[in-house]
This record gives sequence, C-alpha cells and structure tokens, in this order.
Amino acid sequence: MTPPAHLADFDLSLLDQQLDTDDYIVKPGKGVDVHDRPTRYEGPIEKDYGQDAFGALSHHLVDLQERLYAEGKRSLLVVLQAMDAAGKDSTVRHVFGPVNPEGCQVTSFKAPTKEELAHDYLWRVHHHTPADGNIGVFNRSHYEETLIVKVKGWAPKDVIKQRYDHINAFEKMLTDEGTAVVKFMIHISKDYQKQRLQRRLDRPDKHWKFNPEDLTERAHWEEYMEEFNTTLSKCSTDHAPWYVVPGERRWFRNLLITKVLVETLDKMNPQPPKVNFDPASIVIE
Amino acid sequence: MTPPAHLADFDLSLLDQQLDTDDYIVKPGKGVDVHDRPTRYEGPIEKDYGQDAFGALSHHLVDLQERLYAEGKRSLLVVLQAMDAAGKDSTVRHVFGPVNPEGCQVTSFKAPTKEELAHDYLWRVHHHTPADGNIGVFNRSHYEETLIVKVKGWAPKDVIKQRYDHINAFEKMLTDEGTAVVKFMIHISKDYQKQRLQRRLDRPDKHWKFNPEDLTERAHWEEYMEEFNTTLSKCSTDHAPWYVVPGERRWFRNLLITKVLVETLDKMNPQPPKVNFDPASIVIE
Repeated sequence: MTPPAHLADFDLSLLDQQLDTDDYIVKPGKGVDVHDRPTRYEGPIEKDYGQDAFGALSHHLVDLQERLYAEGKRSLLVVLQAMDAAGKDSTVRHVFGPVNPEGCQVTSFKAPTKEELAHDYLWRVHHHTPADGNIGVFNRSHYEETLIVKVKGWAPKDVIKQRYDHINAFEKMLTDEGTAVVKFMIHISKDYQKQRLQRRLDRPDKHWKFNPEDLTERAHWEEYMEEFNTTLSKCSTDHAPWYVVPGERRWFRNLLITKVLVETLDKMNPQPPKVNFDPASIVIE
Repeated sequence: MTPPAHLADFDLSLLDQQLDTDDYIVKPGKGVDVHDRPTRYEGPIEKDYGQDAFGALSHHLVDLQERLYAEGKRSLLVVLQAMDAAGKDSTVRHVFGPVNPEGCQVTSFKAPTKEELAHDYLWRVHHHTPADGNIGVFNRSHYEETLIVKVKGWAPKDVIKQRYDHINAFEKMLTDEGTAVVKFMIHISKDYQKQRLQRRLDRPDKHWKFNPEDLTERAHWEEYMEEFNTTLSKCSTDHAPWYVVPGERRWFRNLLITKVLVETLDKMNPQPPKVNFDPASIVIE
C-alpha cells in the first residue's frame, strides 16, 4: 500500500495550483446545500498525475505522523461520514494504510451496545479520541446521532436540536486541549450508490458487504441529504471544519482528503522534543 | 450504616421550615466569595433532631435511587470537591453508604495516569459518568483541572480560562441527555483543617491518611480559596449548580447534602416502567 519511494520527492507545485482544498470546505457560519456540491470531480487534474500526487502526499503524511508521534503532545481526529457504499472503508485503506499503525487507530462505530446506550451519546466516542501523538480515524462517528437518529426519528427533534451545540462544544474542548479535528463527508449521488450496491450483489466476494437494510436507508435518501445540510451547516466551525468530498472518483477522493490532512498537520508543525544531553559527549564503551 | 427503620416515616416538616437548601447554592450568574459562606452551621436545627432528619432523608434517598434504577432512563452525577481533610471520604460513607451499591458507583480521581494525561482532561472523567439508572459520585473531579492545576501553575492561565466553558458545555450535554448534575464544595476553615490534620498525626490508626504533601497545599490556602471563587462563580449553572456546604459539623454536612439529593431526585420523579401485561390475568399453574 505504501506508494513508490521515488514519489517522496515528487514536485507538488502543479497540484497546489490546481487544487485548493478551501473550495471543498463548508465555510463556518455560511451554511451548505450538498446538492450544490459535486459528487464527481470534473476539474483539470488528470488521473495519472493525481495518483502520483497522492503518492507524494502520502509520503508527507507518513512523515508528519512520525513527527506528531515523536512530539507526543498533540493529536489529530479525522471524522468520516457518508451514505452506505460511498467508500468509507476504501478511504481508510488508501489514505491511512501507509501510516504507521502504532500511531494511528481506526474506530468503526456500529450500533451502540446496551452499555453505551446507557450513557450520553458522546460517551463512547470520547473514549476513542486519539491520545497525544496519534491520529484517530472515526469511520462513522457522533454525527450518526444527528444523521440517522434524526431520519429514523429515534430521538425527539428538540433533543437532536441541542446536539449541534453539544458537539461544537465537545470538539472545541478537544481542539483547545490539543486534538485537531477535521471532518469529511464523502459525497455521492443516489445513482452512484445504486451501482455500488449492485456491484456487491454481482460479485460473490462482495456479498458479505451487502445488507438488505441499506435499501431501507436508501429509500430515505433525500431526508439524509437534508440532515447532512443541517448538520454540516451547524457543525462546520473554525476549529473543526467539515469538507464535502466528491466521492465518485476514488483517486480524487484520496488525493483531496490526504491534501487536507497534510495541510492540517503542516500547520500544526509538530516538533520532536529536544534531547536534554549533548549526544556528542556520550561515549559508549 | 442504614438508619433505623422507624425514621422512614419521620415527619420532615420542621426540617423544611428550618433548612432551605437554596441558601447554600451559588446562584448562577451571581458569583460567590466563599469567605462570606459559613464553614460551620450555627442555625436553629439541633444536632439530635438533625441526625434523625438525616436518617429519614436517607430512607427517601434509598427509595428514590431504587426508582431511578427501575426506570433505567436517567442518572445522577454528584461532584464533591474540598480541601484536604475536609471530609470528602466521610461524606461518601455517610451519605451514600445506605444506597444500594448496585446502582451507585463512587470514583475517586487521583493523579492522572500516563494514558489519561495523553488525552484531554475530560476524557477520564467522561468514562466514569453514571449509566442510566445509576448515581455516580465523583470524589474529586474534573474541577481539579481548574483548582489544583491553576494553583500549581501546571497549565498556562489562558488554557485554564477556556476550561470553565468546556466544563459548562460538558455538563450541559450530560443534563440534556439525562444525567442530572449537582456539585458540592465542602467548606472548612484553615484552622479546622489544622485540627483534622493534627488528628491524623495523633492517632496511629489515621497515620496512613497523612500525606506530607498536604502541608504544601495548605500553604497555598488563600490561592485555593480564590480559585474556588472563580470556579464556582463561573460553573454554577441552572443545569448543574454548585452548593457551598458548611463542613465543620458533620451531621449538618450530611443532612444538607442528602436534602439536596432528595430534592433533586424528587424533582426528576423517576417512574418504574409500566408492565406490558395485565398482572391479574396471569395464572401460575
């Protein structure tokens, strides 16, 4: 999964000209309608170049994570949300595959257990936030508590309404205390989901990924999009922004997410601690 | 530890006339100077009567906790903070001793472990918040993160300044999601602490409770009082109030805290779930 070594020195200046990650952010306070956002990248970057650029960024991500780990003072939380079959698992594999697993933990949140349900909805999530020096990846997250919970009507509307503030405050506390937070919606069309689900049915080796319940959720597609609009509008903040990632060309999805992560870590600029001895003075006899 | 059974029906109307728990609350938004608050109760309640009234309230607390547990939908978090030797352990023993331990968990927060320090300061605390149906007691708490951390200078002032908001938001989320929160500062004078520490030195069976470091903290008494003022002023909220409990007469301390807990649970009015069958129609053959 590690990209070819020669890509480590690949020139990224063309990419910087052609891809501004800010174009994909949900501007805090501005609101978003995901219907206005592309599900498929149609810009100037060519696939071959994009794949090489991804390889290069991947090397940078690995380096930056090593520095974050060596510093041991701050951490990075990455949230992934999407409709079924949009490519969350594939994103985790491609983007975080190259990163040293010792400093990167992926948590896939499933239906809560009885013990988890017996606590507030941030309880189980908080337990899995990354420790200093680590990258934590949430494959699904506390945002299920506004998304599916709203669409399914599992909690009264006024309970859900309070949660946007809870979540913003929770993420503010995390960032104040040293955990950077970035959040990605992997955005696909209803037609694209159909193709991906059909593929699971057509390929026996993918049958295990097909869940008949996904069709129930698919029937609520528009309600999910509406709640994505509300959630992303209310919870994209300066301290913890949401990005809407076009999900239908996987090479672009990986490229964009990795670029955001590299830019975020670059800004944090983690510094390995200085040693408190003079290495030159040490004699090993 | 369970109070005598005859106290279960004890008439509490005199107590309600003589003790208004609101007199001990820190009014949200009003601020407090703990120097203005009594460390020793000198009101009209006699000790004998007070002890019986405590016994009666204790029965109510046990009943209410049973109903909370049967309902299984909400919980109660009780926070205890105080200077060393003020009587936190004794409060836990007297007030929560009678409660069914299956539905009541006490967490004593000590110096954080390396793993805990590697996360934000609410991480370990959140893990121990009570599950539905339970009472959770924090013997020390997240408030150490403003109190001792400020006095010791373990974190920069601007970091601590953000924490009042974090904590208010965290406690708001807990209450919105079904965990009531009440907080008690057990308030004693510096002279009283001297007596209690001396007692630990004088009694060989109490030596283990004496920690020479307590004297270092004692030297910072005034700084602690100042930070209690700031913390209680900023973090006593409608959803999670602080009470300043005169700590120097233990029977009164137990009485006041138990009355607040009974009033809080009474207001929650937990209801055991209705059975979905007609018990009369069931024939056991």
